[in-house]
This record gives sequence, C-alpha cells and structure tokens, in this order.
Amino acid sequence: MNHFFSGEVKMLRCAIIGATGYTGAELARILLRHPRVELTALTTRQEGRIPLRAIVPSAPKDHPLEVRKFSFPEIKKKADVVFLTVPHTEAMETAGKFYRAGKIVIDLSADFRIRNASYYEKWYGVKHKEKGLLREAVYGLPELYRESIQKANLIANPGCYPTGACLGIAPLLRDRLVETDSLIVDAKSGVSGAGKKANPATQFCEVDENFYAYKVNRHQHAPEMEQVLSEVAKGAVHLTFVPHLLPLNRGILTTIYLKKRAGTRVADIRKSFERAYEREPFVRLRPEGEFPALRDVQGTNFCDIGFTTSADEDEVIVITAIDNLIKGASGQAVQNLNVRAGFPEEEGLIG
Amino acid sequence: MNHFFSGEVKMLRCAIIGATGYTGAELARILLRHPRVELTALTTRQEGRIPLRAIVPSAPKDHPLEVRKFSFPEIKKKADVVFLTVPHTEAMETAGKFYRAGKIVIDLSADFRIRNASYYEKWYGVKHKEKGLLREAVYGLPELYRESIQKANLIANPGCYPTGACLGIAPLLRDRLVETDSLIVDAKSGVSGAGKKANPATQFCEVDENFYAYKVNRHQHAPEMEQVLSEVAKGAVHLTFVPHLLPLNRGILTTIYLKKRAGTRVADIRKSFERAYEREPFVRLRPEGEFPALRDVQGTNFCDIGFTTSADEDEVIVITAIDNLIKGASGQAVQNLNVRAGFPEEEGLIG
Amino acid sequence: MNHFFSGEVKMLRCAIIGATGYTGAELARILLRHPRVELTALTTRQEGRIPLRAIVPSAPKDHPLEVRKFSFPEIKKKADVVFLTVPHTEAMETAGKFYRAGKIVIDLSADFRIRNASYYEKWYGVKHKEKGLLREAVYGLPELYRESIQKANLIANPGCYPTGACLGIAPLLRDRLVETDSLIVDAKSGVSGAGKKANPATQFCEVDENFYAYKVNRHQHAPEMEQVLSEVAKGAVHLTFVPHLLPLNRGILTTIYLKKRAGTRVADIRKSFERAYEREPFVRLRPEGEFPALRDVQGTNFCDIGFTTSADEDEVIVITAIDNLIKGASGQAVQNLNVRAGFPEEEGLIG
Amino acid sequence: MNHFFSGEVKMLRCAIIGATGYTGAELARILLRHPRVELTALTTRQEGRIPLRAIVPSAPKDHPLEVRKFSFPEIKKKADVVFLTVPHTEAMETAGKFYRAGKIVIDLSADFRIRNASYYEKWYGVKHKEKGLLREAVYGLPELYRESIQKANLIANPGCYPTGACLGIAPLLRDRLVETDSLIVDAKSGVSGAGKKANPATQFCEVDENFYAYKVNRHQHAPEMEQVLSEVAKGAVHLTFVPHLLPLNRGILTTIYLKKRAGTRVADIRKSFERAYEREPFVRLRPEGEFPALRDVQGTNFCDIGFTTSADEDEVIVITAIDNLIKGASGQAVQNLNVRAGFPEEEGLIG
Repeated sequence: MNHFFSGEVKMLRCAIIGATGYTGAELARILLRHPRVELTALTTRQEGRIPLRAIVPSAPKDHPLEVRKFSFPEIKKKADVVFLTVPHTEAMETAGKFYRAGKIVIDLSADFRIRNASYYEKWYGVKHKEKGLLREAVYGLPELYRESIQKANLIANPGCYPTGACLGIAPLLRDRLVETDSLIVDAKSGVSGAGKKANPATQFCEVDENFYAYKVNRHQHAPEMEQVLSEVAKGAVHLTFVPHLLPLNRGILTTIYLKKRAGTRVADIRKSFERAYEREPFVRLRPEGEFPALRDVQGTNFCDIGFTTSADEDEVIVITAIDNLIKGASGQAVQNLNVRAGFPEEEGLIG
Repeated sequence: MNHFFSGEVKMLRCAIIGATGYTGAELARILLRHPRVELTALTTRQEGRIPLRAIVPSAPKDHPLEVRKFSFPEIKKKADVVFLTVPHTEAMETAGKFYRAGKIVIDLSADFRIRNASYYEKWYGVKHKEKGLLREAVYGLPELYRESIQKANLIANPGCYPTGACLGIAPLLRDRLVETDSLIVDAKSGVSGAGKKANPATQFCEVDENFYAYKVNRHQHAPEMEQVLSEVAKGAVHLTFVPHLLPLNRGILTTIYLKKRAGTRVADIRKSFERAYEREPFVRLRPEGEFPALRDVQGTNFCDIGFTTSADEDEVIVITAIDNLIKGASGQAVQNLNVRAGFPEEEGLIG
Repeated sequence: MNHFFSGEVKMLRCAIIGATGYTGAELARILLRHPRVELTALTTRQEGRIPLRAIVPSAPKDHPLEVRKFSFPEIKKKADVVFLTVPHTEAMETAGKFYRAGKIVIDLSADFRIRNASYYEKWYGVKHKEKGLLREAVYGLPELYRESIQKANLIANPGCYPTGACLGIAPLLRDRLVETDSLIVDAKSGVSGAGKKANPATQFCEVDENFYAYKVNRHQHAPEMEQVLSEVAKGAVHLTFVPHLLPLNRGILTTIYLKKRAGTRVADIRKSFERAYEREPFVRLRPEGEFPALRDVQGTNFCDIGFTTSADEDEVIVITAIDNLIKGASGQAVQNLNVRAGFPEEEGLIG
Repeated sequence: MNHFFSGEVKMLRCAIIGATGYTGAELARILLRHPRVELTALTTRQEGRIPLRAIVPSAPKDHPLEVRKFSFPEIKKKADVVFLTVPHTEAMETAGKFYRAGKIVIDLSADFRIRNASYYEKWYGVKHKEKGLLREAVYGLPELYRESIQKANLIANPGCYPTGACLGIAPLLRDRLVETDSLIVDAKSGVSGAGKKANPATQFCEVDENFYAYKVNRHQHAPEMEQVLSEVAKGAVHLTFVPHLLPLNRGILTTIYLKKRAGTRVADIRKSFERAYEREPFVRLRPEGEFPALRDVQGTNFCDIGFTTSADEDEVIVITAIDNLIKGASGQAVQNLNVRAGFPEEEGLIG
C-alpha cells in the first residue's frame, strides 16, 4: 500500500497530464467536485497558460487553477496520483517515470492495456518502450479486476469500446452460457471518441446527418476485447467487431449477438447478469426485453445493459450503453482511483 | 398491357393519394421533374387546399398545383397511375377500388407486401379487406422481381428496411454461398422513416444526441424480409433483425452478418454481387473492404453495397446504404413506374 | 421569516409539482445533489408511479424516490418549499393553496411574473384566478431583485428569454448609457424551451437542420422583459423581440443591439457591467470584443456576457448566453431557494 | 457578345476549377443536369484522379468524368465558360488568364467583388494582382445587376451573406422607405459556409449543439454589403453585421432590423418588395407577418423573404432565407451563366 493512504491524509493530490483534450477536460470536471481529491495540476505540451474555464466551463467563476506546460519535477512534487490523458504511444515513457517516482499512475491511453508487447506494437505501430512495466499494469475494469486494482500502482484504463463490449459479454462467457466462436459486436460511437485533434473526417459537415462503419474488422480495440474475453472464457474467443460513427457528441451503444450453448435457458442469462452486477454501483441491468438508450447514460458513469433472446431462443442479443468519455474513459479512471484509494466507489461520480 | 402504354401517349398522368406525409411529398418532388409524367393530382384526407410549395419547397415559384381533399371519381378521371402514400392498413380498400377501375396502382404502404394474409393480420393487427388482391400484387423490388413488375397492375412497394437488407443478402443466398440459418441484420435508420405524425418518441429533444434500438426482434418488416429471402433461398431462413434510430433525417445503413458455407471463397462473394448488380442502374458495388456512408446515397435512388470477410473468413460482413425516402420508398416507386411503363429505368431519378 | 429557517433545521424539505417535464426533471437532478435539501416528493397529474431513473438517469442506482400522483395534503405534510413546474395557467391555483398553507412557493410558470393582471390575461389568454397574490409575488431574478427575494414567500421564477435579455441590458439602462427607445433583442433558443409535449412543430424532422424565427414581435416573454426593463430604466422602454428556434437541445444566445446615448464612452459600458456583476456568482463578463458560446454555459447556472461597440461607436452590441433549463429555469429556481433560505448562493449549483 | 453564343451552338462547354470543395461539388451537381451545359472538366490542385462519384454522389453510376490536376492549356481548349471555386486570394491570377484567353469567367471567390482595391487588400490581407480587371468585373447579383451581367465576361459571384442581406434591404433603400444610418443585419449560417478545409473550430464536437456569434462587426462580407447597398441608396449607409454559426450543414437565415423613414406606410413596404421581385424567378415574397425557414429553401436557388413592422410601426423587420451553397454560391453562379448566355434563367435550377 502506498504511504499516502496509510495515515490521516484525507485529500489525495491529483494531477492531469494532457488536460486540454476531451478526456482530460472531462476528468478535470469530475475531479474538481470529488470530495476527497485536491486537483493540484493540469498540464499540456503547449506553452502559455490556459484558464480552467476554457476547458471546464462549469468551474466556479474565477477559480485560480490553470493549465500549464508539463514539468516532471513540478508534478512529482505536487501530486500523489497522476492521470495520463495524452495520446496513445505518448504515454508510456511518462507513465514509467512517474511509476518509478512512487506515484500511482492511471493511464487513459492504450499503452499498458495489451499485455503482449508484440500485439501492441502490431496494432499501434510503434515500439513499446516500457515492456518491463506491462506485467505490473492492471487492466482497470473494476467489474472484472477489482481486487488487482486495489493494489495496483499502474492502472491501464480500458478503451471505450472494450468497456461497452466486455461488460455485456463477460458474465455469459464466464458462466459458459454462450459459444466462444461467434461473438459479434456491432458498436456505434459518438464523435468525441475520435479526440479533439482537427481531422478532415470529423469536420462537422462530414459527420452531421451522416453515418457509416469504419475500420471494419481492423479496429485496434479488437485485440483488447479479445484479451479480456479470452481470460474470462479461459480459452480463445472469436470476435467480429464493427464500429460505426454516430452524428452525436457522446455515447457508445453496443449491440452484441451471441450464440447460446445447448441447454442454456433464458433464465440462466438473466441470473448470470444479476449475479455479476447486482452489487456493482455502476452497472444497471434492465428487465428482459428492455433496452437502454444513450440518453440514459450520457453524463454518467453507468453502463446500462439490456438483453433478449431470438424467437427460437438460439441467439442472445445484448445491448449496452455507456458515455464514452465517462464510463468509457474519465469516469472509469476516477472509479479506479476510488477502488485503489479505498474510497467509496461512487465518490465524486454520482449526481 | 394497359391501354395507356399501347399507343402514342407520351405523358403518363399520375396522382398521389396522401401527399402531405414525407413519402408523398418526396414522391411529388420526383414526379414533378419526371419528363414523361404529368402530375395531375395530389390529395389528402383533410379539408381545404394546400399550396404545392408547402410540401415541395423546390417547386417552381407560383406552380398552380395544390393538394386537395381526396375524391375517388375525380382521381379516376384524372390519373392513369395512382400512387398510394397513406398509412398502413388504410391503403387496401382504396387500392382495390382503383385497381378495379383499371388503374395501375403503386402502393407504398405495407398492405399488399405480405402474401400470407394471416401473417399480415398478425403483424399489422387488422383484418385484410382485399385478400383476393394479394395474389395479384407484385413485390416491387425491381432488382429481384423486374419481370413480374413489367406486367403488374398492383405493385406493393417494399418497406425501407427490407430494401436495404434484401439487396445485401439475396445474391449470396441465391448462389448458396452463405448459410440460411444465421442472418443477422443490424439496421440504423433516420427519423423520417417514422413518418410525419406527432409522436412523443420522435420529438426533437428525445432523438437529438440520442441513439437506441427499438422493436428488437419484433419489427413488422422482419416477416417481409423473410418472405423475400426464403423465396430467393428456396427454403426457410432464420433472421435476426434489430433496428436502431439514428439522430438524423434520412438514410438507412444496414450491417449484415452472414456465415459462409463451407467451400465459399471471397472471390465467390464478389462475383455473386457483380453478377447480380453489374447492369442494375441503382445498385453500386464497392471494391472488397470499402463501405458506403449514408452521405453517399442521401437524395438519390442508389443502394450502395460494401462487403468483407472476417479474419478467418468464416463470416461475411455486408453493409448497404439507402435513402429511406427514395430507394426505400418514393424513388423505388418511380423506378417501379418506369419498369411498368417501359420507360428507361433511370428516367426522373438521376441528377 | 419562515419558521423553518429560524432554528437548527439544516435540511430543507422540498417538493416538485410537475416533475415529468424538462424543467421538473432538471430541477430534480439539481436538488438531489444539493447538500442542504431533502427532496421529499415528486408529483405528476398522471396515475401510477414513475421510477426516479426515468426522469433523472444520473440518479444513484436503486434510489427509492418515485414520481407519484399529486396530492395536496401529502405535499403539505412533506415539504417546506414547493416548486411548481406545471404549465403556464395551471400553476396559479396550486401556488395560492400552498402559499396560504405557509409554504415557500417557487413558481417556474409565468403565472405570477406579470404584475398587471390584465396584461397577463391578454398574453396568456386566461383569467387570472389569484390576482390578490400578484402583489405578494417577487420576480426571481436575483441579480436585480435579491433583497426582495430574501423575504418572499411567493417567487415568480423568470422566463428563459427575459433572463438572457434583462441581464444583458439592465445595467446599461440603469446607468443611463443607452437609449430607451431602441432595444433590439434577437434571441435564439434550443428546443427544450418548448417543453416536452408532443407537437408537430418540434418533431425531430421538422427541427433538425432547420432554423427560423417565430412569434416575431408577438412572443409572450416580451411584456415580461418590458416590465423588468422599464422598472430599471424608470420609464417606458421600446423593445423589439424576435425569437428563433435552434436545432439543438439546450441554450439561449441573445444578441442585443442598443443605441448609445450621447456622451457614453466604451469604458462606461465596461464599468457598468463590472459594477453590476463583479460580485455575482453566476454572471461572467468577457473582455470587450470577446463573446460567449452556448457551449460555455450548457449544464451550468452561468450567464456569460460579451459586448462591443460598432465601428463608429454609435451602437452597443451585447451577447448573452445561458442554459435555458438551468439559469433560464431550474438552476435559477434553486438560486432563488438559496437566496431565500440564506444558503450560500452557489450551493448545489457549481461543479 | 462572345462568339459561342452567336450561332447555332447549343451546348455550352463549362469547366470548374477547384471542384473538390463544397461549392465546386455543388456546382458540378447542378451543371451535370443543366440541359444546355456540357461539363467538360473538373480540376483540383492535387495530383491524381478523383472519380466524379466521390464529389457528386448523385451522379449516374459509372459516369466517366473525373477530377484531374489543373492545366491551363487543357482547360483553355476544353471550355467556353470557366467557373472558379478556389479560395479567396487564389482566384485572381487564374481569372485574369482565362479572361484574357477570351473565356467567360464566373468567379465564386471574393477576388473581384470589391471594386476598391485598397478595401479588398485591407479586408483580405493580400495585394490585388489584377487591379485592372476590377472595373471589368460585374457583381453577379442578377436581381440588382442583370443588365450588366448580360454583357459581362468577368462575373464576381456574390458572397453568401451579402446575397441574403442585400435582397432583403435593397428595394426598401432604393424606394427611400427606410433610414440609411441604421441597418442591422443579424445573420445565422450553416457550417458549409466555412468550406471543407480541416479546422479545429469546425470539428463536429465543437459545432454540434453549440451556437455563437463570430467576427462581430469584423466580417469581410460587411464591405461587400456596404458597396452594394450604398450604390442602391445612392449614398453612404451605416451597417452593423453580426454573423453566427448554426449547428447545421446548409442555409443562411438573415434577420434584418431597419428604421422606417417618416411617412412610410406598411403598404409601401409590401409594394416595394412586390415591385422588385414579382417577376424574379428566384425570389419568393411571403405575405406580411409570415416568415421563411431554412427548410423552405435548402436544396434550391430561392431566396424567400418575409417582413413585418414593429407594434408602433417604427421599425421594419425583414427575414430572408437562402441555401448558402446554392443561391449563396453555386446556384447563383449558374443563374449568372443563364443570364449571360441568354438561356431561360431557371434552366437547370428548378426541380
């Protein structure tokens, strides 16, 4: 256990590295109202200072916090917990430095999610510079890995698509209710998932009133899902993953098609989900045949789940909904903080 | 053959019954610029007169045509071809009367699509009042039923979802390249598909920035797809159909997951689509691995199709895109008119 | 002062009458996280019970509160403060009953905003049934009427358009920097301002990608603005008010064109705004020439204000931005509660 | 008169320089269906070839036209009329070359709109390289300059905002019904007006659900409006211009506030507009008190106009609506072509 949880310290000093992107700003918004967190630093690679209001419009008037240029020694001094919201491939080195400086690192990039470095290198197209740390990193999906997260000093916060997909599939695989060779994940995401960088494909006029699939069977989140789901299934799984881009800002709806194993009854499906999520503060199960909308979860850390079976009961359809910037990124990072720090898991994340 | 195609008559007199809804207005817009059509009447159930401009803003300034209250004798006198764009369950009786009056009837409702009256009655919840006509009606999907349409006097214009789904699946089923017991159709439609009627669920604030599945495995277009696809497959098919509502006005993107039959090669898939659609004026096939966006087909009568196979080539993924009001409704109705009247099939539908 | 503020009572018991509309639900969301409020009842006219989650998706999982059918005796027992979020013309009688039962009533409808009953009756088209209470009611715009609100037991929460317009104009009129005979208010509102009721004009397909002015010079909020602004100006004002409907959910941007009085300098404008709003927790003034976007205030109780003068400095342009459901309705209602109860004014409204 | 209109030539050979932007593509779409135009070339600065379908999805399947790299000699050979849809400041030199080569040049950039070179240089920040041609150029607003356009070989196609503003103001200024010292133009434009170039400010997540004013009193279209309106008024005018960005693709709604001159009656306003536009094919006047929506003009070359006066009749409110890519750019360019070539003015622009 880290020293700063051992004694009387009540307020945890947190810093956000990369605070000007969408996930960084959302994380700042959440941490600002977290009753046990003192947000001590927001940083960026750019020169100059940016007022808090420019990234968190809802911050109190005249709040003194600013986004400043990143400085390792300064953050080392100011923070116990370091959140990294920098782009993939740019987080690993910084993560390593803070980890070795004794900080708790919560990395929202993909850099420590894939345990197999060669897989990572294949999908992200760069050499991994902190291979040694890959085995220290814990995959930060509390519903599946809570116990490991409680002791982790390097938490790899999950991708948005894997969060929505894994929460909808894992219990049924674990309880051996569905086949492992036919997992179809048809996901639809809002545009904020693409990040804030100017991009011809995400210009307003290209996305507005439009809809399409992209990276069909070639998305970098597929190996992340496969890693989690094959661990749960204790064996290889066969996944088809087709992401689509929705003309809206926030949210991922994931429609999942599974084949039931012989002998599985509808009631088994329901019980499997109930067992898995009854006590989870951020997963809400709907009655059979009722399905969530993005509206139900936008602005929250919830993952809502609905399910049904096909007429002949051969197929199971599961639909999950999350806010990609919250349960799919910054909210889940705070949930991981709460788990790691021993805070109530909903602290700062409800209301 | 009808008398009005036998001689020298060049301009076909057309009427639209139910011209104030979205499909009626779109049909009026198309027919107004069709070089071989004289649009002689637009009708509604309401009293009073509505200027053309109110339903077709792009009409020439001061065009004299108006929408007037429906009168059977008047339309009988004024039109050779009668398009019905009234709600489901309200078209059948009117269709019967015009059919028996010797008109060509193109019905955009669902009333004559399902050949089995008891299926229709189950899904639409009303008694069918023109059962005798069901065997006269031809399903108006020209890519599959062109020869029958050429001789039909009652054309049942297809539903929007079945158009997008069937064009993506039929060639592969016909050529026995995919299994019949696992057709998954994950469709996403714009809101105009729901029609113009005020409805709490389609209020702007309920749809905007939102997304969800509805009528999961319970949509009335499923039996229509099954009828077409089992005819093509010459045997029963097992279909899973999940429609979703997109926060945009027009377009349906349909993502289809199929299981390859043993022995099928990727090239077979491509050749099957090419054979089926090479000479079709309104189906555009993409090279393998390229997929259409709604933007590519909005405002057009095209159905664009892309396909690929999964990494292990076990699965075929097909994506189709249509404009639900055009290829999914009014454009297809005009294509049917062109086929029936012996006009060039693209007349009035290109540009 | 009401008894419930006199002693040791820390948690104020609040009820919302009409909790299923957009303002009611937003008010519930805010009050649920207010540290000094116990939300004891949510009511509706409908039969049956609605779970809290259906109106406040962000509420904690399994929160026991429900929306129930309205009962005066029950609410009388359960609440110290009653918020009315029922439609205009339906609030006045209920407000009167709770007022006479000794409750603090915060009415979000228009029923007590217009002091002159005959004006109210002209613009809202119904007889006023509680004329006697009109002189008890205080207009709940804290930036202008804070002292009266501190003692009021009937608070008429302002309309959304008047909030955005009056905060942008009042200081300049009060300080006699602009003419009173040429106030042009060009306002643009999101669709949630129209309420939740199904309405053909606010169906998604009618609003999406569309924009237009409505009730040009005939909107019922004009007399409300005139009442406030003529009080501030101590004399009649001449107002032109043109509201427009934006294809988005939340927010009002108000562009105001004023004529400078002879002798007014740009610096006078700035100082007037600074004096008025420096200590206001919910008004943020931009440097001259910088203007707010709706994004800056959505989800917050802030009113952001920017201003400039025309090239020849003859004209003053002021732009204000608010979230119509928060500063324009439910947030302002809670601000009024805080003022009335002597709580810190930002309580429950920041973060 | 140019030689190519003198004889029997029926099809005019047209080229579009800069066909990959939004206005270029829209122009291509319109010219493709123009019955008297042969579209012979589409060019871009980029290397490689782009299929027509990529810029005009509604083009017939397998149309052979492609977008190719610009070559002056090639276009000189292939086209009688050259449309320039390249960015401001990049059109002037190319325009000069084609003009001197005897072509009719229709320039959709701003480069020849402002007659006073020093004004142009101030607002667009570059030296004008074809000052000599400025006096040859005719401002292509047919409703005001039709006779000059009929003889012009260099047509400066108007800006989108000036089109919407000038058509709403010019008749009233010309007929001396309103004051010249108080013209307020509050305009709201869709995002396509900003062009296709990737830009952080027009990324989907920055525009969606957002709304704001920009370049308040500093927009480069203001001097263009002032030039036209002071010509019409035969004297200086004082204009306040505030543009806003709408979260939608196409359309400009312009709300105009004018002061009536003493003695002007409401009927004078109506008659002035009627006189001006009765015979105009692309201006539609609404009855007093009725106002256009963007929906009424999107996809068309119409400018719709509504008007009213304030309660005390001191003020005139005029609202105009156009599609910024059609009447505000490419449609107007084709209208100018029709005027110049002596074609019916609606050719290719209706239906």
